[in-house]
Amino acid sequence: MLRGKILVIGAGRSTLHLHEYLAKHLSSEWAITIADRDLSLAESMVFAPGVNAIALDVQNYDELARILPGNKLVISMLPADLHLLVIERCVELGIHVATASYLTDQILAFDERARQAGVTILNELGLDPGLDHLSAMHMIDRVRREGGLITHFESFTGGLVAPECDDNPWGYKFTWNPRNVVISGQGGAVKFIQEGQYKFIPYHRLFRRTEIIEIEGYGKFEGYANRDSLKYRSTYGLDDVRTMYRGTLRRPGFCKAWDCFVQLGATDDSYELPGLEEMTHRDFINTFLAYNPTDSVELKLRQYLKIDQDDVELWDRLVYLGIFEQTPIGLKSGSPARVLQHILEKKWALSVKDRDMIVMWHKLLFKDSPGVMRELNASLVVTGEDRQRTAMSKTVGLPLALGSKLLLEGSITRRGCIRPVYPEIYEPLLDQLKELGIHFVETLRIDN
Amino acid sequence: MLRGKILVIGAGRSTLHLHEYLAKHLSSEWAITIADRDLSLAESMVFAPGVNAIALDVQNYDELARILPGNKLVISMLPADLHLLVIERCVELGIHVATASYLTDQILAFDERARQAGVTILNELGLDPGLDHLSAMHMIDRVRREGGLITHFESFTGGLVAPECDDNPWGYKFTWNPRNVVISGQGGAVKFIQEGQYKFIPYHRLFRRTEIIEIEGYGKFEGYANRDSLKYRSTYGLDDVRTMYRGTLRRPGFCKAWDCFVQLGATDDSYELPGLEEMTHRDFINTFLAYNPTDSVELKLRQYLKIDQDDVELWDRLVYLGIFEQTPIGLKSGSPARVLQHILEKKWALSVKDRDMIVMWHKLLFKDSPGVMRELNASLVVTGEDRQRTAMSKTVGLPLALGSKLLLEGSITRRGCIRPVYPEIYEPLLDQLKELGIHFVETLRIDN
Repeated sequence: MLRGKILVIGAGRSTLHLHEYLAKHLSSEWAITIADRDLSLAESMVFAPGVNAIALDVQNYDELARILPGNKLVISMLPADLHLLVIERCVELGIHVATASYLTDQILAFDERARQAGVTILNELGLDPGLDHLSAMHMIDRVRREGGLITHFESFTGGLVAPECDDNPWGYKFTWNPRNVVISGQGGAVKFIQEGQYKFIPYHRLFRRTEIIEIEGYGKFEGYANRDSLKYRSTYGLDDVRTMYRGTLRRPGFCKAWDCFVQLGATDDSYELPGLEEMTHRDFINTFLAYNPTDSVELKLRQYLKIDQDDVELWDRLVYLGIFEQTPIGLKSGSPARVLQHILEKKWALSVKDRDMIVMWHKLLFKDSPGVMRELNASLVVTGEDRQRTAMSKTVGLPLALGSKLLLEGSITRRGCIRPVYPEIYEPLLDQLKELGIHFVETLRIDN
Repeated sequence: MLRGKILVIGAGRSTLHLHEYLAKHLSSEWAITIADRDLSLAESMVFAPGVNAIALDVQNYDELARILPGNKLVISMLPADLHLLVIERCVELGIHVATASYLTDQILAFDERARQAGVTILNELGLDPGLDHLSAMHMIDRVRREGGLITHFESFTGGLVAPECDDNPWGYKFTWNPRNVVISGQGGAVKFIQEGQYKFIPYHRLFRRTEIIEIEGYGKFEGYANRDSLKYRSTYGLDDVRTMYRGTLRRPGFCKAWDCFVQLGATDDSYELPGLEEMTHRDFINTFLAYNPTDSVELKLRQYLKIDQDDVELWDRLVYLGIFEQTPIGLKSGSPARVLQHILEKKWALSVKDRDMIVMWHKLLFKDSPGVMRELNASLVVTGEDRQRTAMSKTVGLPLALGSKLLLEGSITRRGCIRPVYPEIYEPLLDQLKELGIHFVETLRIDN
């Protein structure tokens, strides 16, 4: 006996585990429809009898208006800028929504209307944001319950490649949307607070202001800051915290080499490159270097970016990508960022057997009730199985699937726009994620 | 006997010579109204009996609708983003418009309607753009008439301070809108073409990609590239030119020191700085530097920006501005760019007797009809009289005044959106400007 209908929009990369979980745990009680612009993608994600696949273009008003009514919940794995189309209609129709994307001001504008309609818009329930909130709030609330005063919070997440599959000098392959990797950090100065002082980093300095962290058994990583750490002070109830810093992890050396592209302007997504059809990789790099009738592209680049002759590691990374080769780019049009992505995809694509790795790390400093400074760390490492069954898909999809189930079961009673920062959400989710192989290792030490 | 009415909107900085010229040469035939949001400013620019001053807020639809009808011409010295309000109404009412601002795509959208209405929208007739077009086209057309093939065009303009008033290590004071100086170069990659190769410079590299030029009798200057040089290929009829580069002049050393602020992110205008009321100059700089419990702001800055201990000239420039001092900033809110402007205004303001200086320089390479490569240069230096009677006001205001007169006399018959690149405009204007003390020195040499 079915309890109702749910709609899952999006069947692309990183949705495999979501669809699998829903098929296994919800399809006996709920009629599930999977919608994607590409019908064959949607069909490829049907893992239980009774799950239905359809083609849907959410930008087509009529199609969306036909498919939404009667659903109890819509899970949206759409690109971030398309959620609004769905959310607006769902609020009108009294349908809950769950996404793994950031709760933007535009979405927040529906808060009051959603409350009045008895609708929950569950945001930021994937990996990062998502799993980070669950684990961070679990630590924060516990420390506070025990009378601790939190002064410092740092959190880093990285989507990387498993050590045994790490066969290129960058220690990196594309494990999710390559475009987001190329334009990462753009769109405004990075903001955080450290020891009570506001700190701002412009994009062109971001990749040289890194921090090294080490995770036992997995070696060293370097982290660069995310866009806006400040707003998470209120989200986590840490308004008076002296340090709040959220960042992204890469393997050491990545950021310094990536900074070469930032310095050149090769990550710029704001204009179209003229004459692209005739360009080679080498021409592309030369476009950002001063004209000189005799000097080579390599020499000009070294001088411009002040790359020492003996900085072999950095140079090897650049050479590895083939950027100095007279290989045709193979694009008809595009921005510098688009071209760079295209060149990188030739080298950083996951091969069939490659396994990705998700790393998450939190650091919390607090004064305990006797007044001793303590440091609490939590770390998570999840490794994928192959190019399809990625750790990324697992850590994005399972929190969202579990949260959706909780919502359908009636265990989430908060309405309006929420993040998964409440005990009634993070506790059951962390318990279930642990059973599914996603669990954090915590270490506590006295800090002196 | 009056021939009709004209309206001049804007009575701020750099409009003195415009209003003087109009009063002297046009007020006997035309009823002139000067409008400004600030009535006392408008009144201060009344230099002839019969010239009328009024208060006007162009963003108030009704006020604008009341004042426009019946005018033959509107001269707009508004901030660039406000011209459109005026232009739209003037096209409807059949009124000509003249401005010293860039012909944007938004303005160009009125081209067809303006033609149909018999309206001329005369754009880019100030200093730069303006005087540069007049002098460049004069050279270009002459070379072409004589059978020369132009391969290379460069043009630089700078608003600086006269050598005898140059009493600070930057060789610079604010001689026009300080805000535009602080955010100069922002808003997208710089684009030009050199020796047939497209070149792009991101903002954060712009001030380190300078070119040194020398003008006889005035010493050396350094130039950095303007936003988009590429579009002037078609404007000047030089579609096949191999080099097209337009830039801005400063005294040598300025750009390297200015780059420190760019690197810090202190020229960012995209976000509000929190906690500004309690901040000192020193705190402001520290906001962009990594936290360190012991190192001084000076040391952190040196390390971050790799400023050598013996780069005394650069360091002296920074120290001169007082950026390391514990002086309260004195602003309640603002972006980093706004704060920086405020700090700079304490040091870079023109004193009562200070005289400014406009420098313009063109370089043209061409193959003459016998096939010899030649180089043609033109340079212009104009010095102001005092803080009010600036060279900036003269070189912006007189071309616009002369062009407006030409339009009123019926000598400009082209309709729609135009730039002053036609002989029927630049020839009479250059002749008259010469009589008014604005004239170019040309030098021709055989290039080998």
